[in-house]
Amino acid sequence: MGRQKILLDKLARFFQIRNLLLRQALAECLGTLILVMFGCGAVAQLVLSEGTHALFLTVNFAFGFAATLGILVCGQVSGGHLNPAVTFSLCLLGRDRWRKFPMFFLFQTIGAFFGAAVIFALYYDALWDHPASFNVTGPSATAGIFATYPAKHLTVLNGLFDQIIGTAALIVCILAIVDPYNNPIPQGLEAFTVGFVVLVIGLSMGLNSGYAVNPARDFGPRLFTALAGWGSEVFTAGQGWFLVPLCAPFIGATIGTIVYQLMVGFHVEGEVRDRKENIEDENLRLSDVNTNSKSNSNGKDS
Amino acid sequence: MGRQKILLDKLARFFQIRNLLLRQALAECLGTLILVMFGCGAVAQLVLSEGTHALFLTVNFAFGFAATLGILVCGQVSGGHLNPAVTFSLCLLGRDRWRKFPMFFLFQTIGAFFGAAVIFALYYDALWDHPASFNVTGPSATAGIFATYPAKHLTVLNGLFDQIIGTAALIVCILAIVDPYNNPIPQGLEAFTVGFVVLVIGLSMGLNSGYAVNPARDFGPRLFTALAGWGSEVFTAGQGWFLVPLCAPFIGATIGTIVYQLMVGFHVEGEVRDRKENIEDENLRLSDVNTNSKSNSNGKDS
Amino acid sequence: MGRQKILLDKLARFFQIRNLLLRQALAECLGTLILVMFGCGAVAQLVLSEGTHALFLTVNFAFGFAATLGILVCGQVSGGHLNPAVTFSLCLLGRDRWRKFPMFFLFQTIGAFFGAAVIFALYYDALWDHPASFNVTGPSATAGIFATYPAKHLTVLNGLFDQIIGTAALIVCILAIVDPYNNPIPQGLEAFTVGFVVLVIGLSMGLNSGYAVNPARDFGPRLFTALAGWGSEVFTAGQGWFLVPLCAPFIGATIGTIVYQLMVGFHVEGEVRDRKENIEDENLRLSDVNTNSKSNSNGKDS
Amino acid sequence: MGRQKILLDKLARFFQIRNLLLRQALAECLGTLILVMFGCGAVAQLVLSEGTHALFLTVNFAFGFAATLGILVCGQVSGGHLNPAVTFSLCLLGRDRWRKFPMFFLFQTIGAFFGAAVIFALYYDALWDHPASFNVTGPSATAGIFATYPAKHLTVLNGLFDQIIGTAALIVCILAIVDPYNNPIPQGLEAFTVGFVVLVIGLSMGLNSGYAVNPARDFGPRLFTALAGWGSEVFTAGQGWFLVPLCAPFIGATIGTIVYQLMVGFHVEGEVRDRKENIEDENLRLSDVNTNSKSNSNGKDS
Repeated sequence: MGRQKILLDKLARFFQIRNLLLRQALAECLGTLILVMFGCGAVAQLVLSEGTHALFLTVNFAFGFAATLGILVCGQVSGGHLNPAVTFSLCLLGRDRWRKFPMFFLFQTIGAFFGAAVIFALYYDALWDHPASFNVTGPSATAGIFATYPAKHLTVLNGLFDQIIGTAALIVCILAIVDPYNNPIPQGLEAFTVGFVVLVIGLSMGLNSGYAVNPARDFGPRLFTALAGWGSEVFTAGQGWFLVPLCAPFIGATIGTIVYQLMVGFHVEGEVRDRKENIEDENLRLSDVNTNSKSNSNGKDS
Repeated sequence: MGRQKILLDKLARFFQIRNLLLRQALAECLGTLILVMFGCGAVAQLVLSEGTHALFLTVNFAFGFAATLGILVCGQVSGGHLNPAVTFSLCLLGRDRWRKFPMFFLFQTIGAFFGAAVIFALYYDALWDHPASFNVTGPSATAGIFATYPAKHLTVLNGLFDQIIGTAALIVCILAIVDPYNNPIPQGLEAFTVGFVVLVIGLSMGLNSGYAVNPARDFGPRLFTALAGWGSEVFTAGQGWFLVPLCAPFIGATIGTIVYQLMVGFHVEGEVRDRKENIEDENLRLSDVNTNSKSNSNGKDS
Repeated sequence: MGRQKILLDKLARFFQIRNLLLRQALAECLGTLILVMFGCGAVAQLVLSEGTHALFLTVNFAFGFAATLGILVCGQVSGGHLNPAVTFSLCLLGRDRWRKFPMFFLFQTIGAFFGAAVIFALYYDALWDHPASFNVTGPSATAGIFATYPAKHLTVLNGLFDQIIGTAALIVCILAIVDPYNNPIPQGLEAFTVGFVVLVIGLSMGLNSGYAVNPARDFGPRLFTALAGWGSEVFTAGQGWFLVPLCAPFIGATIGTIVYQLMVGFHVEGEVRDRKENIEDENLRLSDVNTNSKSNSNGKDS
Repeated sequence: MGRQKILLDKLARFFQIRNLLLRQALAECLGTLILVMFGCGAVAQLVLSEGTHALFLTVNFAFGFAATLGILVCGQVSGGHLNPAVTFSLCLLGRDRWRKFPMFFLFQTIGAFFGAAVIFALYYDALWDHPASFNVTGPSATAGIFATYPAKHLTVLNGLFDQIIGTAALIVCILAIVDPYNNPIPQGLEAFTVGFVVLVIGLSMGLNSGYAVNPARDFGPRLFTALAGWGSEVFTAGQGWFLVPLCAPFIGATIGTIVYQLMVGFHVEGEVRDRKENIEDENLRLSDVNTNSKSNSNGKDS
């Protein structure tokens, strides 16, 4: 056991990355890999078993709890965004630096790419066994296992609205959960709560196009399918649908941030600020009157 | 980043609402919007997909966890009632002021109205694609996505009883969860527990008329459907059924409050009061006998 | 508001019950009413909707979370047993007094009786609308909504074993959850955990006879159905099956208690006792050697 | 009650096992028994009811929450591994001693064996009533209730990969949950979180061969079926498939450990070590300069 400890210690020192941003990006990469691996795995189970081993409800649960697990794996290191739209929203509010955004976007997409690759390898035999092995469109197409495609009834305008609303709903709930001035969740349960948000979005907004609401989760696997045998049709299907889940979530994130801030955030934050300023004002007035005798209590108040 | 902070600060100060009641009403509005958006969204997914993308169980989960998320978003600010019947019950017990009641009722209904509007827009194409697009009654009617309608077997009397029992069950459980003298839930998990209450009500009392048990959740979306194309039939269907989920929940809330107080609440509360009074009595007696020597221990007891 | 407070205070004092055992029994009554109301309500939804509004999974979730809610409502007052077999097991271990047992059994059965009555009233129209309204046996019999009946394949011996194993599994898990020497659950989450136990028992042991594992939950509603129109057949069906869920759970509770104590309980408890005794022994030895100088540290240790 | 206490105390002392490793192994045995009893019970309910009383989703929930309950029962005593692959991974990281590994493996397998035996007895009548009572292969074979068998489409290579990936995913999530340097879960909720991991693996990786990802859970019940009437075919079916879930999980555990350590673990651990060393370095430098005056603050820092 002594030798093992020494070996482990050596390995730990050799592989340790000291750059904070890279470390965070790697953690996001692993977290998004887990999200996509479990989420798309459930879609694969639904599509490839033709319903004997899964329901649409299964997929909802899988994406929800996959988000929980992804956040748990990387949350302590990187905050557990798993979604460029979340990073974008936190940058908008000045809670994260903008230079994090492209780095996180890139590594989240890489994670999603490899998550899709794992599921592709896991269900390789089942995929070849499936009647519509590598179809992008049609009744039992398999491209939908990895990336999202619009339902037949959906126009591009409504699809755009679908992604905007879905992401806005996600962001409103996440901002409420992580709001430093309005945090009603016990420390450590944020990951579970975000998982429930993703679950509920799937339960109620999954019919139009499969609730991507996450540019990395959609683009990474789509790129993978383009390379793995489905071809460039994954980009052209649905009149270039791939652009919708790639761009609309950022509009949704902006709207969600505005709605939450206008209806709850600014007021909660303001109340805390008002209280602070009142105390400072009072202290100032007090220090005008008697500078010396009250200095102790001031120290306690501020 | 400096400029962004300054801009955000300016926005925060400009939009901050200082009136407490208005701020609470706005929060209730957003919370109820979230409840109805996710809940009715799940019904839409069930009705419009004709069962391929949802089960009745999906709707139960969606309403349950939508309640959780709605409460999380607004709970810190307004208490997270999301339901005029809950506000009514808390006013009955003297835990909230009666003047809150009409304000909350109004804004909860407005929130529910806009929640329905969001779902209408989200599934606009799917709705037009559906064979019974704007039917209020009939086999695949879509009005039931937004408001509740009685099942064929239901008489008005039984429907009334259904809403009364459902709301009473909801109120008994909520009162147990938020009872200051009997609070067995860790701080911050109340929202989850209320979500489970709503889930269980849906699992067991959803067959008669779809468990509205909430006047705002039912009336807001019903008003929206009347304006959005379903017409006045939404009010006349089921012999004026809309009055049942609008009024019965208040009767149910009263009964639930009485049942909980008689069977648990009064005794738990009384025990705490008895203990306090005993201590005071003892202190009084003690101070009669020897006023000075025991003054220290009194200070500790009370 | 002043008057309301005074009125509420008067009511509270008038209705307050000071007898602890009666208060606990009333709380158990309400808790079991909630368990049976939600649980049997879900079975009613499954049977009466003929599967459109429920699955067997729905029933499992409903009974699980109904147990959670029942425990939450009465747990602080009475411990939240909801099940005579649980009371029996805790009496066996000397953690509750035996005189509680008949009182709890009676009030749990009364609660279950009224829980069934509520569901009967709630689904009265649906019951009359059902083709097999008041059948005890047969393909779509409705007596199974309230009490349990054996599946066709089940012999009495296997049914007995089914109830014994189910209750033993329940008791092993509950004892682990409430073991004062081995309590790994955060304070206040016991109710949720017990709910998961009931859920899992339903998921895996529900095929034979519907997992009563609770004499009160089965006998109370059975008595109700006998009075409400199903007649004495509810007692004679399945060769007097009603005796099995009435008696077998107590055998199961005994076996579960023994298994848990032999495999985990005695050792965990013993370890704590050994540690205490070691400290006492050491203290004794120390006090033999030097009686005075070490007296302070002894005080700290014990 | 006095006599009962004395009797209980005598029993406790008589049956108490003082050997720590044996006590831990016994606890693992009971925990794995619970995992397999509830998990395989759900599969039995699915197979024997032919879908009326269960879905594949039921099995996923059952295995997930069965893992939670198994961990809760034995976690305080033995850590709640329930899976030789988990024990293996913790030994690899030097967090458990290697001599625990064979002992735990043995008792976990024994627990799984008896868990299968309980379900066999519980569903004995239902099994005989089933058309394909003791078939190992074929459309409604019952051997799959207890051990896992590959789907028709699966090659051995893909099956191997399936078990490796599944176990690696399990281990990555478990290591994140129990990482002492990166523990984002409130104390006491680890069991629930691991349950969600097992649930999600079932939701997304259950199609190929039923996600054993646990040598004990698969081998124990398989041995039982060989003895209980299915015969040696349980070992020869699928070209000796039984070797895959017996061996592949250890490869998966190794890969999962490496992935987690390289992408998150080493860096989190390293950061803590760096901080410690910095403080020590600083203290050293400080003590070079002035040995006496700073000695108090050093004491606080380290």
